[in-house]
Amino acid sequence: MTDTDSTPSTGGTDHTAKAPSRRALIGWGGAGLALGAAAAGGAVAMTRVGNDVDPAGADAGGAVPFHGAHQAGISTPVQDRLHFAAFDVTTRDRAAFVQLLKDWTAAARRMTAGQAVGEGAYGGLAEAPPDDTGEALGLKPSRLTLTIGFGPSLFTKFDLAAQRPDALIDLPKFAGDALDPNRSHGDLCVQACADDPQVAVHAIRNLARIGMGKVVIRWSQLGFGKTSSTTPGAQTPRNLMGFKDGTRNIAGTETDRLDKFVWVGEKDGPGWMTGGSYLVARRIRMHIETWDRTSLQEQEDVFGRDKGEGAPVGKAKEHDEPFLKAMKPDAHVRLAHPHSNGGATILRRGYSFTDGTDGLGRLDAGLFFLAYQRDVREGFVRIQRNLATDALNEYIQHVGSAVFAVPPGVRDADDWWGRTLFAKEA
Amino acid sequence: MTDTDSTPSTGGTDHTAKAPSRRALIGWGGAGLALGAAAAGGAVAMTRVGNDVDPAGADAGGAVPFHGAHQAGISTPVQDRLHFAAFDVTTRDRAAFVQLLKDWTAAARRMTAGQAVGEGAYGGLAEAPPDDTGEALGLKPSRLTLTIGFGPSLFTKFDLAAQRPDALIDLPKFAGDALDPNRSHGDLCVQACADDPQVAVHAIRNLARIGMGKVVIRWSQLGFGKTSSTTPGAQTPRNLMGFKDGTRNIAGTETDRLDKFVWVGEKDGPGWMTGGSYLVARRIRMHIETWDRTSLQEQEDVFGRDKGEGAPVGKAKEHDEPFLKAMKPDAHVRLAHPHSNGGATILRRGYSFTDGTDGLGRLDAGLFFLAYQRDVREGFVRIQRNLATDALNEYIQHVGSAVFAVPPGVRDADDWWGRTLFAKEA
Ligand code: HEM
Ligand code: HEM
Repeated sequence: MTDTDSTPSTGGTDHTAKAPSRRALIGWGGAGLALGAAAAGGAVAMTRVGNDVDPAGADAGGAVPFHGAHQAGISTPVQDRLHFAAFDVTTRDRAAFVQLLKDWTAAARRMTAGQAVGEGAYGGLAEAPPDDTGEALGLKPSRLTLTIGFGPSLFTKFDLAAQRPDALIDLPKFAGDALDPNRSHGDLCVQACADDPQVAVHAIRNLARIGMGKVVIRWSQLGFGKTSSTTPGAQTPRNLMGFKDGTRNIAGTETDRLDKFVWVGEKDGPGWMTGGSYLVARRIRMHIETWDRTSLQEQEDVFGRDKGEGAPVGKAKEHDEPFLKAMKPDAHVRLAHPHSNGGATILRRGYSFTDGTDGLGRLDAGLFFLAYQRDVREGFVRIQRNLATDALNEYIQHVGSAVFAVPPGVRDADDWWGRTLFAKEA
Repeated sequence: MTDTDSTPSTGGTDHTAKAPSRRALIGWGGAGLALGAAAAGGAVAMTRVGNDVDPAGADAGGAVPFHGAHQAGISTPVQDRLHFAAFDVTTRDRAAFVQLLKDWTAAARRMTAGQAVGEGAYGGLAEAPPDDTGEALGLKPSRLTLTIGFGPSLFTKFDLAAQRPDALIDLPKFAGDALDPNRSHGDLCVQACADDPQVAVHAIRNLARIGMGKVVIRWSQLGFGKTSSTTPGAQTPRNLMGFKDGTRNIAGTETDRLDKFVWVGEKDGPGWMTGGSYLVARRIRMHIETWDRTSLQEQEDVFGRDKGEGAPVGKAKEHDEPFLKAMKPDAHVRLAHPHSNGGATILRRGYSFTDGTDGLGRLDAGLFFLAYQRDVREGFVRIQRNLATDALNEYIQHVGSAVFAVPPGVRDADDWWGRTLFAKEA
C-alpha cells in the first residue's frame, strides 16, 4: 500500500481483463421495417458493435473474466455500483432447480462478457418475448461481475442438510440489531457489481426473469457508491459519514492474505466449498441527521481517524499504521482492528445506499455492508461482537442481515454455479 | 439531429463549461495530528487539489455554470444520475424562509462548482459540526446541476396566493392514476443531476441539512440512469422496457424550440416567472414482469417503434420522421406525438429507478418521468389526457405526481433562488 492519492487503477489483479471488450449489440433486426407481423417466422440475427472510444481509465468499460478458481466479484477491484438480490426458492423439484443454476450460469457468462442473454438469433421471432430485456444493449460490459451465494435456509431444502458447512452459521443476534425480516435472509443471493448501474440492474432483472416459477426475489438493494477499495494506490472512497472507508482492507492482489482470510481451503471443508468464501450482508442505516449535528472532534473520535486525510489518531497519513492506544477505547477502528480481535480479518466490499425517505422526513441512507471471509465465526461474528461497545453505534442501526456460502468459481464453459454442491446427486 | 450512433458528447450548449474544474478539497486539517481537543480554538484551513487526470469525455468531470438567465438542469445535457427531493416548509416566518433561499443559493453555487459547503476555513473548529458532510470531498463537480421549483401548496403560505401562476395548476386526476400521497406533491423541489450519484446525493443532503427547522424532506427519488437525451448526436439511452427513450426530444441547443415550448416568456406572466419553466414529475411504475412476458411484436406495437434500432414503424432509422398512420391507433408514440396533440411539445428529462422489491417479489422499478414546459396545461396535461387510450397503460402505473413552478436562473453572485418572487416584499 502507498500513501499517495493517485488515480483509481484497476490493474494488477488476475480478475480484470486488460483488453476492454465491448458490450455486443445483438439486436432485434428487421422488425422496424416490417408492418404487422410480416417479419415473423424466421430468426433474424443482427450483430452490431458499440462505439470505439476508449473508456475512462484502462478498464472502466472492460469485461471481467467469468471463469476461474474463485468467483469474480470478491477480490475483483470494487466496481462503482451494486445491485444485490436475495431470492427464495419456490420449486420443490431438484432437477428443475439444478437446471436453473445451469441456465443462470450460461446467462451470467454472457452478460459479464457484455453480451445479451440468449444466443445470436434470440428475439428474432416476433411472436416470442425477447430472451433479453434489452436495456443494456449498447452499454459496455462495465466490469460486471455476478457472484452467487447459498443461504442457510437453502440447506433445509433438496435434502442438502448434510452438506451445510459448519462455517455457515445462523448469525446470532447482536446488541442493537433491529432487523427487518423483509430485508433479511434468503435461500440464494446474487451480487451484481458494475461500473454502470444499468448493467447491474439489467443482470439481476434478467436472472429473476429466467428464474420465474422457480425462485422469487425476496429483497434487493441498490448501492450507488462503493465504500471500500480493494485496489492499492486507488483513492479511498468516502462513506456517507464523510470518512474514507476501506483504508485497511485486504487488497485483491494480496494472495497470501486472501488465502488466509477469504478463500475456503481444502482442509476447511466441506469439499464442495474449496475455493469459495462466506458472505455477510448487513443493511446498516445511518442516523444521518444526528451525525450531521455532531462536532468534528466527536466524529473523529468515533472512528479514531481524522476526517480530511483519514490518518489514524496521532499519525499524519491515511496509510500510516494505526496506534490503537492513542484512540478512545470505544473508537470504531480500535475495536474493529485485527489486534483487538485475535487477528480476525475480513474483506469489506460495501456500498452506500439512499432509498428515499422514511415517514419522518429523514433520509433512509447508510451502508450496505458486505464482507467476505473464510469462516463467518472467526470473521464477521468475532468483530461484530467486539463492536458492541462501538461509539459508532449511537449513529447507526443494523436493519437487515443475511449470510451466504459462496461456492467456488465456475471453471470453464462446461461448469456451472453450484456444481460442486449439486452434481453428485443431480 | 443525425442518424449516427456516435459517442455521447456534451458539447454545444452554453450551460456546460469547456474547461473541467476540479472538486476542491477543502479539508479538515490538523485534527488528525491532535490528540484530544488540542487543535481546537482556531480555524484551520487546508486546501488540496484533486488528481489531474482528465475525466472521460470532454466534460464528464466538469462544472456546469450556476449563473444564467435560466436555471441549469433543464436544457443542460442530461447527466447520468439523479437525486430528486420534494420538501415541505415548516417555518411560518417569511424572513427565515427567504434567508434559507439565500443560504441554499450560496451552497448550490459552491457545490455545483465542485466546492464544499461553507467558506475556506469551515469545519476547522473541532467543537463545531463541519459545514459540509464530507462524502463528496475528492470527487469532481461531475456536472452537478441544482434546480429549484415551487409547488402549488407553497402559494398558500407566506401570502403568496396572488403570485401563483395560472399555468401552475393542480394536476387533474388522469385515468389509471394510483397516486401515493407519500410520493406526491411538495412545497418545494430540488432536482440534483450529476454524472456521479454520490455528488447528487451529497447535494440534496446538504441542502436538507441547511434547511433543518425550516423545511423537511417530504419524499425523494434516486434515478440511476437517464432515460432521455437532450444532446443531439449522443447515443439515445434505453429505458427499463429496453427501448431507446428521448429520440424525439427538444435538444438543449434548439433555442427556438426552447423559447417556444420550455421557457416562460415575458408575455406569459407572471413577471417573476420570466425565464423560468414548469416541471411535472411523475413516478411511473412499470409492471416489469408482465412486460417481460410480452412478445417482441406486441412490445414494438405498444411504442410504434422497433426495439433494436428505435426506428418508427415502417422506417429504417431511429431519427427518421415517424409516419403516425402506420402505427396502431393506441401506439404510445402516435398518441404522444405533437401532431396528435395540437403541437404540444415537452422537454423530457426522466430517469430509471429501481427501489428494491414490493411485498410480492416484484421489482419496484420504472421511470421517474420529468418534463419541462412553458405551460403545464398545454404541455403535460394535454398529452397525458391523450394517453388515456395508450397501449402502454397495460404495463405501467403512475404512482407519484408533483408539479412545480421553476423560477428563472440566478443571474450573478448577488442574486438568489426565488428573488423575483420574494424580493419586493422581503
Ligand atoms: C455504518 C457502519 C460502518 C461504518 C460507517 C464504518 C466505517 C469505517 C471506517 C471509516 C473505517 C476506517 C478506514 C478503514 O480502514 O477502512 C473502518 C474500518 C474498519 N471497519 Fe468499519 N464501518 C462500519 C461498520 C463495520 C462493521 C459492521 C464491521 C465488521 C463487523 C466493520 C469492520 C471494520 C474493520 C475490520 C475495519 C478496519 C480496522 C483496521 O484494520 O484498522 N465496520 N470502518
Ligand atoms: C413509463 C412510461 C413511459 C415510457 C416507458 C415511455 C417511453 C417512450 C418511448 C420509448 C418513446 C419513443 C422514443 C422517443 O421519441 O423518445 C417515447 C416518446 C414520447 N413520449 Fe413517452 N414514455 C412514457 C411516458 C410518457 C408520458 C407520461 C408522456 C407525457 C405525458 C410521454 C411523452 C412522450 C412524448 C412527447 C414522446 C415523443 C413523441 C414524438 O414526438 O414522436 N411519455 N416515450
